[in-house]
Parts: sequence; structure tokens; C-alpha cells
Amino acid sequence: MPVNIPPLSPEHLLPVAGVTLGIAEAGIKKANRKDLLVMVLNEGAKVAGVFTQNRFCAAPVIVAKQHLAQSVRALVVNTGNANAGTGESGIANAQMTCAALAKLLGIAPQQVLPFSTGVIMEPLPVDRIIQGLPAALANGKTNNWFDAAHAIMTTDIVPKAASKQVQIKGKTVTVTGIAKGSGMIRPNMATMLGYVATDAAISQSLLQKLVQHTADRSFNRITVDGDTSTNDAFIVIATGKAGNQEIYNPHTEEYCLLQDAITEVAAELAKMIVRDGEGATKFITVQVEDGKSKDECAKVAYAIAHSPLVKTAFFASDPNLGRILAAIGYAGVDDLDVDAIQLYLDDVLVAEKGGRAANYREEDGQRVMNQAEITIRVVLNRGTATTTVWTCDFSYDYVKINASYRS
Amino acid sequence: MPVNIPPLSPEHLLPVAGVTLGIAEAGIKKANRKDLLVMVLNEGAKVAGVFTQNRFCAAPVIVAKQHLAQSVRALVVNTGNANAGTGESGIANAQMTCAALAKLLGIAPQQVLPFSTGVIMEPLPVDRIIQGLPAALANGKTNNWFDAAHAIMTTDIVPKAASKQVQIKGKTVTVTGIAKGSGMIRPNMATMLGYVATDAAISQSLLQKLVQHTADRSFNRITVDGDTSTNDAFIVIATGKAGNQEIYNPHTEEYCLLQDAITEVAAELAKMIVRDGEGATKFITVQVEDGKSKDECAKVAYAIAHSPLVKTAFFASDPNLGRILAAIGYAGVDDLDVDAIQLYLDDVLVAEKGGRAANYREEDGQRVMNQAEITIRVVLNRGTATTTVWTCDFSYDYVKINASYRS
Repeated sequence: MPVNIPPLSPEHLLPVAGVTLGIAEAGIKKANRKDLLVMVLNEGAKVAGVFTQNRFCAAPVIVAKQHLAQSVRALVVNTGNANAGTGESGIANAQMTCAALAKLLGIAPQQVLPFSTGVIMEPLPVDRIIQGLPAALANGKTNNWFDAAHAIMTTDIVPKAASKQVQIKGKTVTVTGIAKGSGMIRPNMATMLGYVATDAAISQSLLQKLVQHTADRSFNRITVDGDTSTNDAFIVIATGKAGNQEIYNPHTEEYCLLQDAITEVAAELAKMIVRDGEGATKFITVQVEDGKSKDECAKVAYAIAHSPLVKTAFFASDPNLGRILAAIGYAGVDDLDVDAIQLYLDDVLVAEKGGRAANYREEDGQRVMNQAEITIRVVLNRGTATTTVWTCDFSYDYVKINASYRS
Repeated sequence: MPVNIPPLSPEHLLPVAGVTLGIAEAGIKKANRKDLLVMVLNEGAKVAGVFTQNRFCAAPVIVAKQHLAQSVRALVVNTGNANAGTGESGIANAQMTCAALAKLLGIAPQQVLPFSTGVIMEPLPVDRIIQGLPAALANGKTNNWFDAAHAIMTTDIVPKAASKQVQIKGKTVTVTGIAKGSGMIRPNMATMLGYVATDAAISQSLLQKLVQHTADRSFNRITVDGDTSTNDAFIVIATGKAGNQEIYNPHTEEYCLLQDAITEVAAELAKMIVRDGEGATKFITVQVEDGKSKDECAKVAYAIAHSPLVKTAFFASDPNLGRILAAIGYAGVDDLDVDAIQLYLDDVLVAEKGGRAANYREEDGQRVMNQAEITIRVVLNRGTATTTVWTCDFSYDYVKINASYRS
């Protein structure tokens, strides 16, 4: 079961003026499940996004990146099929989906962004998606984020959504977001699928800057299994309905307030993905401090976060902490002086001077390992850069889920 | 159980003149098991080695690298404790071990190479090792490779050893080797522990060249879990007892013959490590062809070989082959044209032109996936470089073994 995710209820998710969400059961992979989401945006809404850097990026990612240059009026998301590794016919299917939705809405196909998630390298059942569109539009409403969070799930056990309000120059600005993802999670630009909407008014160029800032502090800081998906996308929508003056200057209080609110919602969603990581029983924060650069901190953090040996030791609550030292050592930081490093588990100093700390006692390590939430802190003592990565442990259930995903 | 390793019997392992092997039960971690190996070499034997590139390299690795500059006369290997992450006292313990063995043999401490394998970050029980040395020396004999292979095991299920003879200019040259390793296997220079001895005569400088050549074609081509150990070491011993003229020129038939024989034994040992990979049920060869460079081929091969999603699909015999495309896509080859790539499973063309191959049928993929030995072939179609990596699948038992390793 997911690690410490409080149950989601519809009333916690605030509508964002200008965003209408409709859901349908299109029977894409399985019957009788919500598998199609359509988001319709007001005229004048600004949309920015970041996408997977996987070279085998999915057809909808290719199409969505092209369409982002237009004024976006709708998003269509299907689960059950990733439309990835599908070649030219995959592109055509994504475009047909956009065209069908555009026709129903009376807009141009280029104003629709398509997204898909699910199994890779199987043809997209585009007919079923197109047949499901009218039903999705028919139940569209602004207070539909709860059902929308359900409609984009694949191997997720729980839906993921978060909301926040912030006062900006006397106006109440709302931020609400949903995300999905559980396996094939080592986002590079963004997670599998994440959507955050706000009613704030902000310029297009600043929104693009904001989405990158936010991704780098949320979805780009998590990993479940190190597998970067073909379909990662993180989208921020700003409808401009809050009544605030359009924000165009990054060096203002109002930009910082909005950026922090959106980053907070995105980070909450990102951590939910880890807490619901396939087979996860522990939520692990890896914090690497005092490095020469963020890049070397990230190398060390990801080496720890991806090590199957570290992850299985956490699953077993076994303070076999030498495995963390080994991961630090092979992280690829060539001139690392291992004698200068300190390793902490929460507040317990485990290792320093190249070996076990003099006062370290196994029972102290054991006490921390027994917890469901653990922070691994590595102090490199050679600079001022810091990076945090969130990950989970590695259990029987990860193997079970992924050995039977298609069946 | 290990994948297709034929049972080892003592008579298959040929003695190498000049190498005496003695084994003892020193009680390092558990009572009543062979956990100490001493190899004594003839005067004039040449020794060369390659070691882990993990920055947290173990104390015995640091000491062995220093001692390799001398004329080596003995090697001492303990299992049950890695003497890694042990700081200055770890170095002192490795040196004390060398000094104790040197005293018994009447040689200098610098003529002894120490090796340790087992749990990390626990103090080496050096007293027990030193107490065990006389017993190990007492049963020393040249036809002791079988017991030696047992004495260096940790989580290995089966012992790993191989022998070969080759005729060089009318002289019979013998090559015999042993290795251990099962988890924390993504050697970078060499595997956890591998020792290959030959009675050939060869110059010291050429032997160092040979050990690197051999490692790059054997232990550096395998991965179980992507975790590079702190203790990897691969050592080649040449006793010069075969009676051949000393080989000093790499551009000769005799060098090629010897190099091939040693590489063949080392590759056989390396593949045994994968076949006995923790929890392995399949032996997988990943072959990446027609790349621009060996480096980019290796990036693609290791991305596939380390992907938990690919490895669990193989465990399940599930031809969910889009996961392989995803791994190719995130391998870090920035200008890769995915439309130009062909993916084969054994002889079955699975994907091309960015998607599923027109003639691919699921039952063909299923047929190959059901096998215990599978080759993944990726043709990049942009150069002439090729790389092969050997790996195994990822099963419940990997998690089980590593969640309970210390208990």
C-alpha cells in the first residue's frame, strides 16, 4: 500500500475558473473504467509544458510539443495505451484524436494537446477514443478534478491531486493539480503525466520559465526505478480568471508567490508518485549537501536512489549501510575524497573518515530503518551545492507488479 | 538456481605449476565453512591486476595496488567480511594480514596481496584470519583449485572455475581460473574477485596489457544489478613454468594464443557470475551493433541490462518489449535516430521504423521469451562499433536474497 498518502476527497480539490474537466469510459484497454479525460480551457488561457527526454518519445508527446506553439484550448488524455513505439501510424492516431475533439469543440486541431499512458508498442485504439469524446464533453464541469485524477491512473493504487490558494495583490489565486505515475519513474523533464492549473494571469514567456523551475523542484527530483518513461509530460495551465494583473516580471513578489504555490502543489504530487511507487513500503529522502555543484550532488543522490541493494536493504529495514557508501563511491564523481564525507540516517551519524563513525551504534541505525519515512543525508564537505531526491524502497511487490503488468 | 552452469568437478581443473593453494576454516563470519584462501607463487612469477573504480574502494584494494609494484609471492583472500568502508583501521588490518603471512613464508609483507569479500562497513576480524593462516598453508597443494573456488564464495550458489590448455610453440600452456560474485555486480575494471593463473612465461609489461584486454572482454562486460562493488579485483598470474620462451612482443602468434586462452577462461568465469546472479532465472546477452562508437553501444546495452522493467519482464517471460525501446531511448545517446533502429529477440525482428515490425507476431516473441537463454540484438545502423553485455533477469529471489543478506 502507498506510504502515508492521506485519502483524497472531492471537496479538497478547488475548481480553477476556466478549466472544465470531463471523463468517459471509452473501453480503451478494459471495460467499465474511466480511461478518458478531456480538459477544455477558456479562450486566452496560457499553457506551458515540459516533456520526456527519452529518444523514443511517444507520438502524443511529439504532437503536443508541436501544438504548444498555438493557443491551446483543450487537452485529451487516455490511459490504457501509451501510443509509444508506434511509428508513423502512432503520430497519425494522435493527430486524428486532436482533430476529432477539435471538430466537436469548433476549434483548430492544433489547439488540442494529446496525452497517452499505458502499455508501450501496441496500436492506439483511436476509434474507441474518438467514440468516447462526446460522453466526456457531456459531463464536463469545473469541480471534476477528483474524477479526473482517477481517469488518468494506470498501475497507480491511489489517485493523486492537490490544491492550494494564495493571495496575490489582494486577489485569491487557486492552484489545483493532478498527476499519475507509479512505475517507469525517473522523470527527465517531468513525470509521466502531471497537470497543474491556476486561475492566475501570467505572461506566456514567464509561464514557460515557471514550468521548468517547478519541474526541477518536483517531478525531476523523484525516482522509483530509474526508468525514464517515453510519455512524461508536465503541463501548467494559467487561465487568467483570478482578476490579478498579468504577471510578466520574474523579479516581483507576485511572481515568487505564484511560483512557490505552483511548485508546492507540483512537489506534493511528485512525492505522492513516490509514495505510491510500485511496491513501495518506505518513503526515502536523499539529501546530498556541500557539493561542488548541483550536478555532482545529483549524481551521488541518484546512485543511492537507484541502487537495488540500497533499496532492498530499506525494504528489509536492515541497517546494512555500507551499501550506501558503495553507491556513493560508484556515483561517477571522479575526484571525490571519501574520507571527507559524512553519512547520516535522519539524525544518526553513520559514517565518516572513510568508515563507521566512532559513536555509531547498530541499534540507532535500526531505530531509523524501522520508520516508514527516512532521510539519507550525505555531506560531501567540498562546496555549497545541495540536491534532494525522493525515492522509495524495492520490494517483492515491485517485481510482482512488473512481472504481471500486461496480464 | 543458476542458469545452465554444468556441475564443477575437481578433475576438470588443471593445476598450474608454480601455484600452491591452501584453504582454512577461519570462522570469519560463520563457523565450519571454508573462508580463507592462501595462494603461494613461485619465485619469478609475474602478477598483474585491475581493480574497482569505486571511490570507496576497500582497504585490501588500496594495499594490493601498492604491493603489486613488488615481486608478488602470495595472495590471501578472506570471505565473510569485505574490509570496506573501514577507514584507517581497515588499512592497518589488511597490512597486518600481509605481515603475518609474510612472516610464515619468510618473505616481505609487500610481496603479499590481500583480498576481502563479504559485508561492508564492519571491522575485519583480523585475529581470526591470522590464526587461520598456518592451517591454510599446511594443506597447500597445486591441485586445490576446486576447494579454492568454494573458499571465496559469499552469496554464490555454485563455485566458479574453468581450465584450458593451449599449445604455444610446442609447449603445453595451462590456464586455470576461479571467480566469485553474484550480487553487487557491475564491474568497472573487474568483478568482485577473479583469479586466473597460467604457467606461461610472459613479460611483466605485456601481462599488464593482457589483464586489461581480458577484463574488457569478460568481467567488464557483465552486470547483475548495476551496483559496482568496493572490492572488485581481477588478477592474472603467470608462473613461467611451462618452458616457453618469455613472450614480450604483443604482435606475435604466441601472444595472441595466450591472450585468447586467458580471455576465454575469464569470459567463461564472468558468464558464470551472471548465470549465478542473485535470483537469476535467465541468461541474457545484450548485443548492440553498428553504433558510432563502442561507448555509445555500451550506453545502450547497459541501459537495457540495468532496467528493472526490462529485467522483470524477462523474469515473467512476458514479451512486453516496448520496455526495451524505452530503455534505448533514455540511454543518453543524444542524437540517436530511433526510426533507424532494429530490435531483435534472437532471430525475431521485433521493432523497426520507430515501432513494431510489420511481420512481428506476439507468439514469436513469446517463443523466445520462454527460453532460459536469450539474445537481445539492437542494430543502431549508424556506424561499425559493437558491444556485448551479459546480464540476467530480476526475480522475487533477488529481493529476497538482498533483503536478508546479513541475517
